[in-house]
Amino acid sequence: MQRFKLTIAYDGTDYNGWQIQPGCRTIQGELENALSRFTGDHPKVHGSGRTDQGVHAVGQVAHVDLACGISCSDIRKALNAILVDDIRVLRVARAPHDFHARRCAVGKEYRYFIWNGEIMPPMIRRYRHHVRSPLDVDAMRSAASALAGARDFAAFTANPNRPVESTIRHLKSLTVSRSGREVVIAAKSDGFLYKMVRSIVGFLVRVGDGSIDPLETEGILKSRIRTATVPTAPAKGLFLWRVWYR
Amino acid sequence: MQRFKLTIAYDGTDYNGWQIQPGCRTIQGELENALSRFTGDHPKVHGSGRTDQGVHAVGQVAHVDLACGISCSDIRKALNAILVDDIRVLRVARAPHDFHARRCAVGKEYRYFIWNGEIMPPMIRRYRHHVRSPLDVDAMRSAASALAGARDFAAFTANPNRPVESTIRHLKSLTVSRSGREVVIAAKSDGFLYKMVRSIVGFLVRVGDGSIDPLETEGILKSRIRTATVPTAPAKGLFLWRVWYR
Repeated sequence: MQRFKLTIAYDGTDYNGWQIQPGCRTIQGELENALSRFTGDHPKVHGSGRTDQGVHAVGQVAHVDLACGISCSDIRKALNAILVDDIRVLRVARAPHDFHARRCAVGKEYRYFIWNGEIMPPMIRRYRHHVRSPLDVDAMRSAASALAGARDFAAFTANPNRPVESTIRHLKSLTVSRSGREVVIAAKSDGFLYKMVRSIVGFLVRVGDGSIDPLETEGILKSRIRTATVPTAPAKGLFLWRVWYR
Repeated sequence: MQRFKLTIAYDGTDYNGWQIQPGCRTIQGELENALSRFTGDHPKVHGSGRTDQGVHAVGQVAHVDLACGISCSDIRKALNAILVDDIRVLRVARAPHDFHARRCAVGKEYRYFIWNGEIMPPMIRRYRHHVRSPLDVDAMRSAASALAGARDFAAFTANPNRPVESTIRHLKSLTVSRSGREVVIAAKSDGFLYKMVRSIVGFLVRVGDGSIDPLETEGILKSRIRTATVPTAPAKGLFLWRVWYR
């Protein structure tokens, strides 16, 4: 068997997220079905992590073991021919046997897109969170700089089904940029807690619309308690942008 | 009654075009339904022209007569609240009683978007024509410059149901530009024949992929006969960009 590394883009709108679930349309499920049709076997696809229902990706990474004889370009072409066009396999590369899409990942970048205008243009409606009240990007940047670094993000995660060992993560960078009516929040970290990016975005939007003073950020972090002060931003604005490996 | 000028954007993917038809979902039909619900009356919406099934718009213009007391901003907000989010009313303005969205239009611009790469990014798949073979933009420009001007475009229109008085149109500009894997064809004219832009694009793509020599353009124009040399490009890449009035 040969291990392959796949880089995948998808429009998550019509999927119940990444992870395979019986009776649901999921990205992992579609990839495994397509690989079954292509190879006649039942290869398992391992992602760098799950994305939730409605979240998109332009650089999700996964690995899969397939028979040695198949070329990378044949795998990519076959999968793209079988898959519906809202999932695309961008790149396929041979990987060493000990490569693991989740365990070997050393960092990830997510980007969150906000349309900050009165009328949402129809062509981007599936990929933008619509915020009508004018956002103060300077205030959002001030809060963002208070969140960056190695911090305990217990106040910025949703309660996961299973408790995690630690809620400390190293948020290497958290930037807020504006171009016209589009506001983009980019977050890079060694790892993210459950719904951490959407919680940070939900909080930053409340800072941007004036509901919360950016000076409160430090206190919310230190409280380690998730409250209604930190809402979860909708899935549709979120993109898994890139996964880094050593 | 007061006449209003509406500027409208739509994602045409899920519509049977602009023009109202019984039993079909159309842009004009949705607008008239929304106006009926808003006003309790049955106002008729007159567009600057029809767009075909699957064609998009960022600047379609229409007029409608409504009771005098309603403000432009109330009309815009009410329509956007009632309409599905793939149609948006961008602007509403008071217009003189003799303003007519179709008859007063002095020019239109259409833009056609092509993704010229092997893999179509999922997020733009509804709005781009996918052309895998590398396009020679210089050859396309050369053919485009032979098409520009006041010409007889009989060879670049589909047979309409009703014959038109003249197939001469003044194509004021026809440009081809490339930015990375995206190729954009922009056409401005005092008017367009049925499927004229998609016929021009279908032809230019065949020039770009090397199937037709740009020097043949003049001969095809002069033939005044539509042949298989000029295919119709798919609707999904086409946007009604702007309508001009005096």
